[in-house]
Amino acid sequence: MPHIRVVLVEPLNDGNVGAVARSMKNFGLSDLVLVRPCSIGEEGIKRSMHAVDVLKNAHTCFTEDEALEGADYVVGTSGVDTANDKKFSRISVTPEALAAKLNSSDATVAVLFGREDFGLDNDLVKRCDFLVTVPANPEYPIMNISHAAAVIFYELFVHDLVKEGPREASGLEVDLLNEYFAKLLDAIDYPEHKRTKTRVMFRRLMARSTPTTWEYHTLMGVLSDAAKGCLKSRDGIE
Amino acid sequence: MPHIRVVLVEPLNDGNVGAVARSMKNFGLSDLVLVRPCSIGEEGIKRSMHAVDVLKNAHTCFTEDEALEGADYVVGTSGVDTANDKKFSRISVTPEALAAKLNSSDATVAVLFGREDFGLDNDLVKRCDFLVTVPANPEYPIMNISHAAAVIFYELFVHDLVKEGPREASGLEVDLLNEYFAKLLDAIDYPEHKRTKTRVMFRRLMARSTPTTWEYHTLMGVLSDAAKGCLKSRDGIE
Repeated sequence: MPHIRVVLVEPLNDGNVGAVARSMKNFGLSDLVLVRPCSIGEEGIKRSMHAVDVLKNAHTCFTEDEALEGADYVVGTSGVDTANDKKFSRISVTPEALAAKLNSSDATVAVLFGREDFGLDNDLVKRCDFLVTVPANPEYPIMNISHAAAVIFYELFVHDLVKEGPREASGLEVDLLNEYFAKLLDAIDYPEHKRTKTRVMFRRLMARSTPTTWEYHTLMGVLSDAAKGCLKSRDGIE
Repeated sequence: MPHIRVVLVEPLNDGNVGAVARSMKNFGLSDLVLVRPCSIGEEGIKRSMHAVDVLKNAHTCFTEDEALEGADYVVGTSGVDTANDKKFSRISVTPEALAAKLNSSDATVAVLFGREDFGLDNDLVKRCDFLVTVPANPEYPIMNISHAAAVIFYELFVHDLVKEGPREASGLEVDLLNEYFAKLLDAIDYPEHKRTKTRVMFRRLMARSTPTTWEYHTLMGVLSDAAKGCLKSRDGIE
């Protein structure tokens, strides 16, 4: 994963700065640079919650040059995208596309957020290697700065993730479950001509839901008891 | 796209409620329900920005039942995922997987957010068809409620491409399928203490695989015949 430096240019509201710091920590980021920020008071600290360390270790500086020093790529964030080719400097990528581009790199990437009211000025936009815009409702696309940050950090984070989930049932286990389902069909005297179709349906359903080992065992227990119960009735009574 | 109803259960902070309303409008949502909320004051209105209409049109109610009325699916949001199979009721999907599942449906989906400090209580979690957790830094995974909401709304928004599939079973049909499964558990004398857990498991499995109307009818036929067969054996032989 690249090293991400988050740069807030002239933030006006310390609550937003605290909220961005929290979101950074939620997604494993810690390098925060503030360019000519408002003063950070109680509200900022409160909203940073357990990311007060990110806020306190933030580097404050007076120029954009200083904030961008050593960055291999500069990414600007923008609340408005444009489809106008002439305004090419405002054409942006999605957060997902940005994450895909940066994912395999180990570059230092500065991600810039502009003022809450103006965004990034044109000079700064022109220095960006990428512009990124979060796709949103055209009737009200302007997100809170910390929300836009959360979505972008999230995309960078999930593209870098090897997720360890609950163990999925193996192919062999799933095959066994399908066999038990077939036995149940047999036990209830399911019409021959519909059997194949119904078995395929069940296999597809299970594949779509990718049961865990525990779910597989539980369901197999139910199917097996049901088949036994039906066989008892069929062979015992009839 | 499904109809998304956003349900905040006992929100404590009106600023957060305003921030969620803003984020909803950013992603084209407008149906907000508040269950036993804090009073919504200036901070809430301020943070809702141009989504003050969403906030003002929010429906306030006293019970979860009222908030969930008419919902085909109930989605709970949780700050913590678990890899423990046994705690299956806390196993969750990613926002992306949720969006992919719901995308082609026109169901009414209630997305629940719990209290800022406690999250959703266990009873409410058990009523959920899906749990969704935003993947985050394990050292500090707890996001601000409006940030988690923004990420989830964003994923639902970007997955909103027109995809025509076979018709999905409706919420009512799915409920019926779940009832038949419960009858089968009854017919096989399934241990009482495991019933709730196993029913929740089945409901989650089915929700994950989003059966079509045809699949639902087929599976219901099998479960119904199995239950009848077992009852015949139990009441006839024993």
